[in-house]
Amino acid sequence: MNSGDLVGKRVIPSISIALVHHPVLNRRGELITSAVTNLDIHDIARVSVTYGVKKFFVVTPLREQQQLVATIRKHWQEGIGGVLNPDRHTAFQLVEVCSTVEEIPRLISSSVLEDSLTIIGTSAREYGSSLSWKNFQKGVCKKEFDSILLLFGTASGLHPDCIALCDHLLSPIDPGTGYNHLSVRSAVSIILDRISRFQEAF
Amino acid sequence: MNSGDLVGKRVIPSISIALVHHPVLNRRGELITSAVTNLDIHDIARVSVTYGVKKFFVVTPLREQQQLVATIRKHWQEGIGGVLNPDRHTAFQLVEVCSTVEEIPRLISSSVLEDSLTIIGTSAREYGSSLSWKNFQKGVCKKEFDSILLLFGTASGLHPDCIALCDHLLSPIDPGTGYNHLSVRSAVSIILDRISRFQEAF
Repeated sequence: MNSGDLVGKRVIPSISIALVHHPVLNRRGELITSAVTNLDIHDIARVSVTYGVKKFFVVTPLREQQQLVATIRKHWQEGIGGVLNPDRHTAFQLVEVCSTVEEIPRLISSSVLEDSLTIIGTSAREYGSSLSWKNFQKGVCKKEFDSILLLFGTASGLHPDCIALCDHLLSPIDPGTGYNHLSVRSAVSIILDRISRFQEAF
Repeated sequence: MNSGDLVGKRVIPSISIALVHHPVLNRRGELITSAVTNLDIHDIARVSVTYGVKKFFVVTPLREQQQLVATIRKHWQEGIGGVLNPDRHTAFQLVEVCSTVEEIPRLISSSVLEDSLTIIGTSAREYGSSLSWKNFQKGVCKKEFDSILLLFGTASGLHPDCIALCDHLLSPIDPGTGYNHLSVRSAVSIILDRISRFQEAF
């Protein structure tokens, strides 16, 4: 089932995801390029298929890291991995590698008009201008956000240069305990589950 | 903030989690003991603190694997890991190792009466007798399930002998795409987020 379809009585927007390894921040707030983590790709590809995500982009400008992702994907797409584990073969169909966030809009299916794509960044921090979950739901239900690209930062999160590319920055997942150090794997999972339930009262 | 407290307007039950490595199933439906995965412990400890979980039990009967978990925990509790990364130190405070699921009720704080503990198993499969999410919510809101132990199976899921220990088996996370191969890390994250939002319409 593709995103954009009806799932039960719930309307799901067309969603793509980008896992950003550059430009991101380290613990000291400095600009870095983080290393690709194998398990990130597996977990996020699996949860993406589960929730009908259209494409999952692994963003890194480093050629060697791009080749690493391509090798992993090939193992599960063409190699013995996909034969022994067909579910993983399905998940890796969503995985694309690219160098920058900027090039993603034109990589997303031509059926989606570039100017209708809403880029939404995620963060563990609340900004004054953050998009609340309630307004995010309203925007999706009113079809204001019909085609979405969700950006997830690795390391200590998206660099301001990357946040500047976003139409909105989503309020953090905040159950109220004050601890906001989820893995990116957990954050993607929770955010996709919440979006999938948007038609219900929020 | 401890579980059982009010988080905003939401009532959260007292929750503990067990990540079960035995008895679980392999892909062929055979009884196995799976290997402990370092990243499982990190991710699940982090999401557990985020959602106010009381204890996170890593269940394995293998002495060497128990020692491995103890070594990892010590690194983040007493070693340089916790100094460099205090957030991980906090997360690992929840981690306990034990040999069997059966011994968990008496390991949970004495403030919780053993007979009030509801053991809820999780599965990627729907059983005829599964507890629906709606009824789970009702049970929590009516305080029928006040203190909960959630069991998560590694590998291909909980063995029937483990399911037999459960008071209820929870309906799977099912957004309707037909793909039900989430990582246990994603499943724990999504289930805790859903429970944390139980007071809202479901």
